[in-house]
Amino acid sequence: MAPKIKRESEKENYSHNKPQTPKDKGEILRIVPLGGLEEVGRNMSYLEYKDEIVIIDMGLQFPEEETPGIDYIIPNITALEPKRKNIRAVIITHGHYDHIGAIPYLVGKLGNPTIYTAKLTKAIIEKRQEEFANAPKLNVVSIEDGYKAKVGQYFELEFFSVEHTIPDSTGVSIKTPVGNIVHFGDFRIDYDEAGEAHGLDVIKRVGEAGVHTFMCDSTNAEEPGRTLSERVIEKNLEILFKSAEGRIILTTFSSMLTRIAEIIKIAEKLGKKVVINGRSMKDNVQISQTMGYIKAKKGTIIPTEEMHKHKDDKIMIITTGAQGESGAGLMRIVNGEHKHIRIKEGDTMIFSSSVIPGNERSVQTLKDNLTRQGALVHQSNIIDIHASGHAPADDLTMTVKLLKPKFFMPIHGYYYMRAANGKNAVDGGLEPENVRLMDNGQVAELTPDSFQVTGENVPAHYIMVDGLGVGDVGEIVLRDRKVLAQEGMVVVIATIDRKNGRILKNPDIISRGFIYLKENQALLDEIRNKIRSIVNRIPRHQPMDPDYLKTLFRDQVGQFIYSKTNRRPMVLPVVIEI
Amino acid sequence: MAPKIKRESEKENYSHNKPQTPKDKGEILRIVPLGGLEEVGRNMSYLEYKDEIVIIDMGLQFPEEETPGIDYIIPNITALEPKRKNIRAVIITHGHYDHIGAIPYLVGKLGNPTIYTAKLTKAIIEKRQEEFANAPKLNVVSIEDGYKAKVGQYFELEFFSVEHTIPDSTGVSIKTPVGNIVHFGDFRIDYDEAGEAHGLDVIKRVGEAGVHTFMCDSTNAEEPGRTLSERVIEKNLEILFKSAEGRIILTTFSSMLTRIAEIIKIAEKLGKKVVINGRSMKDNVQISQTMGYIKAKKGTIIPTEEMHKHKDDKIMIITTGAQGESGAGLMRIVNGEHKHIRIKEGDTMIFSSSVIPGNERSVQTLKDNLTRQGALVHQSNIIDIHASGHAPADDLTMTVKLLKPKFFMPIHGYYYMRAANGKNAVDGGLEPENVRLMDNGQVAELTPDSFQVTGENVPAHYIMVDGLGVGDVGEIVLRDRKVLAQEGMVVVIATIDRKNGRILKNPDIISRGFIYLKENQALLDEIRNKIRSIVNRIPRHQPMDPDYLKTLFRDQVGQFIYSKTNRRPMVLPVVIEI
Repeated sequence: MAPKIKRESEKENYSHNKPQTPKDKGEILRIVPLGGLEEVGRNMSYLEYKDEIVIIDMGLQFPEEETPGIDYIIPNITALEPKRKNIRAVIITHGHYDHIGAIPYLVGKLGNPTIYTAKLTKAIIEKRQEEFANAPKLNVVSIEDGYKAKVGQYFELEFFSVEHTIPDSTGVSIKTPVGNIVHFGDFRIDYDEAGEAHGLDVIKRVGEAGVHTFMCDSTNAEEPGRTLSERVIEKNLEILFKSAEGRIILTTFSSMLTRIAEIIKIAEKLGKKVVINGRSMKDNVQISQTMGYIKAKKGTIIPTEEMHKHKDDKIMIITTGAQGESGAGLMRIVNGEHKHIRIKEGDTMIFSSSVIPGNERSVQTLKDNLTRQGALVHQSNIIDIHASGHAPADDLTMTVKLLKPKFFMPIHGYYYMRAANGKNAVDGGLEPENVRLMDNGQVAELTPDSFQVTGENVPAHYIMVDGLGVGDVGEIVLRDRKVLAQEGMVVVIATIDRKNGRILKNPDIISRGFIYLKENQALLDEIRNKIRSIVNRIPRHQPMDPDYLKTLFRDQVGQFIYSKTNRRPMVLPVVIEI
Repeated sequence: MAPKIKRESEKENYSHNKPQTPKDKGEILRIVPLGGLEEVGRNMSYLEYKDEIVIIDMGLQFPEEETPGIDYIIPNITALEPKRKNIRAVIITHGHYDHIGAIPYLVGKLGNPTIYTAKLTKAIIEKRQEEFANAPKLNVVSIEDGYKAKVGQYFELEFFSVEHTIPDSTGVSIKTPVGNIVHFGDFRIDYDEAGEAHGLDVIKRVGEAGVHTFMCDSTNAEEPGRTLSERVIEKNLEILFKSAEGRIILTTFSSMLTRIAEIIKIAEKLGKKVVINGRSMKDNVQISQTMGYIKAKKGTIIPTEEMHKHKDDKIMIITTGAQGESGAGLMRIVNGEHKHIRIKEGDTMIFSSSVIPGNERSVQTLKDNLTRQGALVHQSNIIDIHASGHAPADDLTMTVKLLKPKFFMPIHGYYYMRAANGKNAVDGGLEPENVRLMDNGQVAELTPDSFQVTGENVPAHYIMVDGLGVGDVGEIVLRDRKVLAQEGMVVVIATIDRKNGRILKNPDIISRGFIYLKENQALLDEIRNKIRSIVNRIPRHQPMDPDYLKTLFRDQVGQFIYSKTNRRPMVLPVVIEI
């Protein structure tokens, strides 16, 4: 039976944590998650004490089925903008888009505050910032393991390294007047091949300083067991590489720089030349090389154009496109649109990645095309050639045991993932009543002995980026897109004589996504007749009311089409008065 | 290294199987797969010898991302319709929609031929047929294990039971003048708890009669290992049921009647009352009860309204909606739309099902809502409470070893799944050159010693069912739906004086799914000005050409909107000449 972890809306919880002596509001630390608590992505939270604010992460969320046509979803900073002068620091935990992606959109609006982050992350966010013409140059302080900084009067930051799939991932302990707030960013436990965990001493040390609240990654909280060792993955990849008789084409997330670095190392060891394909893969590898995270010998990484100079079994192509994204490197190869690379018989295709929910069909199609073109496809559901960057249940429980926080605030993930993480914390010794399952936009008030979620809410609804527009696509537009996608639409245009209310010419009808009208002239004529009869049935003495006419068109033409086809396209009536 | 299994388009293959003495075309058996070979679903194939035809299955495919708004996809029977008089039999292997779903749409067009199928399948297809007003009453011959029938001059059918997730699943061996063609429908191997396989004697017996071609289910061909025993699933479910302190809400596919029957049996044993929720679940349970496949005592299955008469720990609700389908039973409960059932704290929610690719996001949202409402969710990724109905690699290999076919034709699944199945067959002793990876619509010619895929193709493209329309939604309509879903559309309407080519009134602009125009008056005005300037720039002496004007509007307004917004809504120009 699962422990009873209460939602914050349940009353018992408030009473339970009521501080003994209510303090002045000024002496309370507020924690406000703006994103990342009802989704995977869009991670951003802030801490506020008196007139000082520290922000943690500024990520984006990729669009989903419910947001067709959208480029990104970013956090809502309505609550922060008026307080921009109070922002003392922005902490960026690591260089993944769900933690850095909203910086160019938001940092200017927040007064371009100082960003604290590690070296590689700094390089990645600075490079990305350049792509945004109107975004300000970033103020970045480069931090490393053990770096401490006092920011403002009330906050002291202490950074420590955490293990994730990109180098320079950092956790932070924020010393505040109410206690230490610890945030690990995304993390997993680093196991060696023998199953020995590394880096636990760091976690223990952070714990020994005392932890008020642990804000903890929940992405894999539902998965049982421990993290699969990256060493095992590397070993399996090496075995696969050796067994390949032709070229190797490997795809993974371009953000998994730790693994990419290791793959290049193995390739070099096996005497293979490496071709990097896809823009983000090229960018990331280049940055990592410049900064020494990838230490390939000269001549190991070769330009695509030189591939033909080497035998097939000496070639490894590392490419973007593991999710079957249209336009990505692998898709261009498979579709025959790549300038230099085609799939051929004997290629070994390795997916060293998981499939992000929602991308399953694209990946199936991709695998199908690869197999048809003669490649031998390996995926991580058959052998262990991918491990997640997020700690699963047993590791999360262990982390809680080492940290011994007073309060546990699961972040990063849907409610059910965070609820599962609450259970992990309880397994790690926490009292169920000290788990806090918040929603985006909820405001928590912390004293040294309490963590109360108030009834206050700040705006946290989706801000959507679509083309150049930020926030101009809202619910109505999305709803219309979904309706249009289902049954298409029909525009009916009636030109009416203002004087006598009669139809002046044959009604125009345009449809898209409904049925192909050219092949359905009969239906087209029936719709025209319907429009005429609607107009003719209006008594001649009645003044022409175009809005009333539009309503009649919408309802009656819609109903007529439904009766004929069982479909409900969007009907858009236009009345032109002459 | 994988064996070299050649695609049928590769020339070597043809030469390899060239019969020594080319026969009269009349003495050749043709196998034509119409669906199910480039997808999961829409299963239908036929065998043709001289002027006689036998059809196997008539399934539908559920819509996918690429076919928005579509209800179903059904097989293309263009090639069969003119030959309908030749059809001697339709074999239906089992009662799942991907094998029966197209019957009401197609059987009438094919002259309502005799259907051979087992008792339960007969009941299911007859009940469904009643829902289609214009579909003919079916002619069904009820078959059972060991049933033989001579159909026409050239075909003799012999049916045998296979294990799948619905009772009365049947395989068939079709004796033809060139040899026996064996088709197992969907199948898996039935293991007991001790890991002992059952039913292998049947497979062996079929094999001993000699198998020319084995048409083999490939759905799980890529999965390693053997089938998980349904007995283990049942045992795990029983443990879960016993540990639940409140109500149990269990969801699975309503088509998994074998498991549903077993779950009801366990519930009864534990003294629980069972509530059946969701239309297809109710229908299926009722049919199964009537026919004796579910043998619940009177009073075990109770109406929803009587649920309150029993303690929570005596209640089990079995419901549809395991895929998070909107409108399904579980969704109505979770959304608070169900008349009698709400989720409450202490409910144990069990997903005894897998997630169909493409439904991951819906299932995530569903789990989130369930957890928020206080249910404890169990899913098969954590404990074994679901097993697939399709044999994985080792079982497929074993089946080939027992059957010893001359030729192996993987069916049911994407190319990559079928290619993996080819490898399974080779592991089972088949020569790689005797594997046939066909595409839908390809025609194979078989003699006693050969199986050649010809260059001939019959139409096999998607036939889409949308509302009352069958086949009237084509590529253009789907493409438009996808475009509309991405960026919406803008209708620009200019009323022009035919005499002088001048604009008569303020241009009308309607948009949906683009931006909310009411809040973007400035852009609206700019678009109107753009339209005016396009018209004004046309020299007055030039005759008004509405098509030319439309092209200008489409291109220039589209370009203008893009420059302002970086979006490309569909621009639909209307020119009204007065």
